[in-house]
Amino acid sequence: MKCKRCRKTAAVALPSHHAAFCPECFLVFFERQVAAAIKTFQMCSRDDRILVAVSGGKDSLALAWQLQRLNLNVSALHLDLGIADSSTVARAHTESMCRQFGIDLHVVEFADLKMAIPDVKARIKRPICSVCGRLKRHVFNRYALENGFDVLATGHNLDDETARLLSNTLRWDTDYLAGQSPSLPGDPGFARKIKPLCQLTEYETAALCFLAGLNYGHQPCPYSPGATFTRYKILLNNLEDDQPGRKRSFYSQYLRQARPVFERLREDRSTPAIAPCQGCGSPTTAGLCSVCRIREAMDLEPLTIIPSSKSKTPCP
Amino acid sequence: MKCKRCRKTAAVALPSHHAAFCPECFLVFFERQVAAAIKTFQMCSRDDRILVAVSGGKDSLALAWQLQRLNLNVSALHLDLGIADSSTVARAHTESMCRQFGIDLHVVEFADLKMAIPDVKARIKRPICSVCGRLKRHVFNRYALENGFDVLATGHNLDDETARLLSNTLRWDTDYLAGQSPSLPGDPGFARKIKPLCQLTEYETAALCFLAGLNYGHQPCPYSPGATFTRYKILLNNLEDDQPGRKRSFYSQYLRQARPVFERLREDRSTPAIAPCQGCGSPTTAGLCSVCRIREAMDLEPLTIIPSSKSKTPCP
Repeated sequence: MKCKRCRKTAAVALPSHHAAFCPECFLVFFERQVAAAIKTFQMCSRDDRILVAVSGGKDSLALAWQLQRLNLNVSALHLDLGIADSSTVARAHTESMCRQFGIDLHVVEFADLKMAIPDVKARIKRPICSVCGRLKRHVFNRYALENGFDVLATGHNLDDETARLLSNTLRWDTDYLAGQSPSLPGDPGFARKIKPLCQLTEYETAALCFLAGLNYGHQPCPYSPGATFTRYKILLNNLEDDQPGRKRSFYSQYLRQARPVFERLREDRSTPAIAPCQGCGSPTTAGLCSVCRIREAMDLEPLTIIPSSKSKTPCP
Repeated sequence: MKCKRCRKTAAVALPSHHAAFCPECFLVFFERQVAAAIKTFQMCSRDDRILVAVSGGKDSLALAWQLQRLNLNVSALHLDLGIADSSTVARAHTESMCRQFGIDLHVVEFADLKMAIPDVKARIKRPICSVCGRLKRHVFNRYALENGFDVLATGHNLDDETARLLSNTLRWDTDYLAGQSPSLPGDPGFARKIKPLCQLTEYETAALCFLAGLNYGHQPCPYSPGATFTRYKILLNNLEDDQPGRKRSFYSQYLRQARPVFERLREDRSTPAIAPCQGCGSPTTAGLCSVCRIREAMDLEPLTIIPSSKSKTPCP
């Protein structure tokens, strides 16, 4: 198998692209895919201050590394969830990578918010994965807004996006089908959000990490068997084996053909009024936002500001 | 496991309905599902002359039998495709069932149309399954119209419908997503078409045949490895095992939430003008319809009428 670009021996085969690449050319391919997604979906410009949500897993590390290599103005935000082992490993990988590649790293410790996930789990009798996800989205969004970032970038890849799309489609949830996008414009109270890896598969991101020497965290979260969307990912991978390119076309055709239709439908419907949360000021359709309600149930005051702990992990 | 209706020992377990039934009560369940689909989708009334397309397989035999049991005005139409072994077995099962239950049977022999499928395959250099499907739909439609039937009923079950829906969705084919329905109104040149088994699975239809003593044809078509949609059916069955009821909700939510949206989209678009085929008069967007073009390529005249061969297999 020869590299499609330089004819050297290939290391990565990509049937969905009818291509194979040697290690050097694969890095070029990956960079071009990210640059193409940024351009196609008008994600960001050279002037934007970009905050990358970095968990320590392969996707977010690859994303921060790649955006940095594209000479974009990148900072990373890591949320230390305070989970024994898992959070320690994730944070160590994040810090190590950011140090190695000179990426400006911010850390928010959930323990500082009195919301280390084991404490939340002990107090809140709801599925912890959904509560944790809600808290993380809230903190990422507010941190970006409160610290003057123009864009929040997340490492969702093509497998994440298609699994979510399949889940939304199997339920025909027309609201979610109107909203899923690799590039969501900012609104008052909502940071602009982008997913520059949306056209790259999990396998391609893993290959990038391996070939670029990015060490990512492997320690699974003790609360999650990693089941979210896993079944849909397996299912889509089986389809992809049979029909190379199926995942990409499912997603791209959705964005081109179906999403605009569901978006118009949503615009035609009256939506519940959004107002600032009486606790923290974040946009909400209820009087008190869901995070303030979680804090209330834990006898905590609303979060008036997300404390920045940038100084804890200075960039060398 | 007890029957949900009569508490006798159950024979058929239906997790998606949170139910199990004994043989007698399963027949009641099946009949009610068919009656409910007919009512919900306004498929037909007691006054309608219904033509059931009967291949000799389990779904179409079960459908003809069930509609007859509902005291509807049913005739069956079998197309003898002229394929060695496979067509002989299918026709024998159809004739035997119709004779046993007193169902008026019509047969069209493709050999009479000079289009026995092996001859078509020898002359037409296109995938035979797609050509055969096109011919069958053309003949079913014209036979219904030319012989004064009000409705054409086909045995498509929930597995067929959800596999097709998944296929249309993975491609986001908005035209097909606008058109898929268990009940299509008639239009000039198009018979009204209904799918009364659309809420019943392949397993439920097979159970019906077994419990009602309907012998169906097993001889596979030599030209088709049975691959059409098979992969999607397996995939959806795997999902169903995990999430009982998933197939039904995927289909019913589509009909409720998504189909109307795609239908409006199609109405907003200009569609190519439909005119009578210059050969046979069937509606077409080209000058000559696809069946007339196939016949032209085989040096055959257009079919001016579909010859009825009802007399060949008289009902006792």
